[in-house]
Amino acid sequence: MSRERLSTEQDEGARAGLTRALDAGAALLATGGAALDAVEAAVRMLEDDPHFNAGRGSVFTYDGQIEMDAAIMDGGTRNAGAVSGVTATRNPIGLARRVMEGSPHVFLSREGADAFSLDQGLDQAPADYFETAERRRQLDELRARPDSEHFDLHLKYGTVGAVARDMDGHVAAATSTGGLTGKRWGRIGDSPIIGAGAFADDRGCAVSSTGAGEYFLRAGVAHEICARIRHLGESPRQAADAVMAEVRELGGSGGVIVVTPAGEGVHSFNTRGMYRGIASPAGRSVAIYGDEA
Amino acid sequence: MSRERLSTEQDEGARAGLTRALDAGAALLATGGAALDAVEAAVRMLEDDPHFNAGRGSVFTYDGQIEMDAAIMDGGTRNAGAVSGVTATRNPIGLARRVMEGSPHVFLSREGADAFSLDQGLDQAPADYFETAERRRQLDELRARPDSEHFDLHLKYGTVGAVARDMDGHVAAATSTGGLTGKRWGRIGDSPIIGAGAFADDRGCAVSSTGAGEYFLRAGVAHEICARIRHLGESPRQAADAVMAEVRELGGSGGVIVVTPAGEGVHSFNTRGMYRGIASPAGRSVAIYGDEA
Repeated sequence: MSRERLSTEQDEGARAGLTRALDAGAALLATGGAALDAVEAAVRMLEDDPHFNAGRGSVFTYDGQIEMDAAIMDGGTRNAGAVSGVTATRNPIGLARRVMEGSPHVFLSREGADAFSLDQGLDQAPADYFETAERRRQLDELRARPDSEHFDLHLKYGTVGAVARDMDGHVAAATSTGGLTGKRWGRIGDSPIIGAGAFADDRGCAVSSTGAGEYFLRAGVAHEICARIRHLGESPRQAADAVMAEVRELGGSGGVIVVTPAGEGVHSFNTRGMYRGIASPAGRSVAIYGDEA
Repeated sequence: MSRERLSTEQDEGARAGLTRALDAGAALLATGGAALDAVEAAVRMLEDDPHFNAGRGSVFTYDGQIEMDAAIMDGGTRNAGAVSGVTATRNPIGLARRVMEGSPHVFLSREGADAFSLDQGLDQAPADYFETAERRRQLDELRARPDSEHFDLHLKYGTVGAVARDMDGHVAAATSTGGLTGKRWGRIGDSPIIGAGAFADDRGCAVSSTGAGEYFLRAGVAHEICARIRHLGESPRQAADAVMAEVRELGGSGGVIVVTPAGEGVHSFNTRGMYRGIASPAGRSVAIYGDEA
């Protein structure tokens, strides 16, 4: 993700999408809304925007399907919901929340998660709603490579996530993704894994992750950042940087966003760029490349 | 799991199965084998034994199917593999290990995981190999209840797991299960989740969990026990008890087994009993009820 490789359209479209997501979350928080509602609202905006790899604009599996993953967690109650491999729910993050609030379970998958979504009356969309020409092109490019390269864990295309802290001091996290281009075998990455792609605990922080999911899973990234804040008394900056350094040592790349119940929000990434933004009563900003503030 | 509720056959059968599993793992370790091989060997024995809810003897889904989950992790490399919803692999723990060593991924699911298993030439079994009359009876009993009680997260029937420490000081963890009787919607519990049902890190410990999976997922049980040992310097006893107390506060029950690179092995559970055993050069022992040593 560098200036040379991103088109003007993608750069500007992503910034506009980030701004809309920040505004959606911030509007709720400004009127006393819950962090949980804010992260869901922000992620819904990003799912609806084809510039990101979640909901509409998700990447294709090796077989040309859309299989989406999402997770949400409430730091106050440590309730959580997650789904993997869903194909027809317009907003997978809404389905993750429904799993959390409307089932005795935390994590549902594939046909079963699709059926639960229908049972619950969530908004469905046909396959062509999610599909875009650019994602099709990326799959074709991948499939044209020699077989051994079909799984490039470093091919990241914009998993989305949000963390928030509300007026009551609660934090929440949400993550949503189409996964990895060309994924096969029902592969599940870190995004829907509570403790890897998302985690929230009022005693520590809320975290949402993006990157080479397999490494984030092995490091338990989101939970480990919270654990360092709780047990070592580290700042979110120290904890996020330390865990991203661990991910790099394992061989992985990516980034995280973190917020604490005290309202300190940070990001950390070891890639050339990461779509990101922050909103607070003091204002809001968005950025993409590593050399932006 | 109390003396009044367990039949003599189940009591004796489970003890014999635990002993075989301990012997299989201990034999490998005694000759310098790797902890990773030892935990796989022990879990294979338990999967093959219909007294436990994993492999043969797995519980049924609501629709009368067998859908098995497993995870394995190597503390030295922090490599990991996991599968969810597999239906035909004789030893799901072997499939989890194959995912770890023979794919670029950590976590595969359902039809895709079944297809990967076939591709890799792993030993397959027909559905009736896994099915037992006792598990069928448990499903029938559950389905006869009022609808609201179909998901009893506290109905636990013997998820299996192993942790080991080898002569080189490496630790490993493995967990395997049929999940929850009457599960629906592609439900995934904690067992195949790296950081919840299993985790291993030579800097801390190896953990395998069993219990009401949804609570273990939310608490990130296996990762949190390691984090407390690493960051707070707690003993495995302190860490395991503290995290099981957290699970109970959230409303959950179950237990864990833990071993450190120094060779200290402990268990902790907040149920009336837990199938368990330990082997070391000093000997081996197995137990079921809470009042046994």
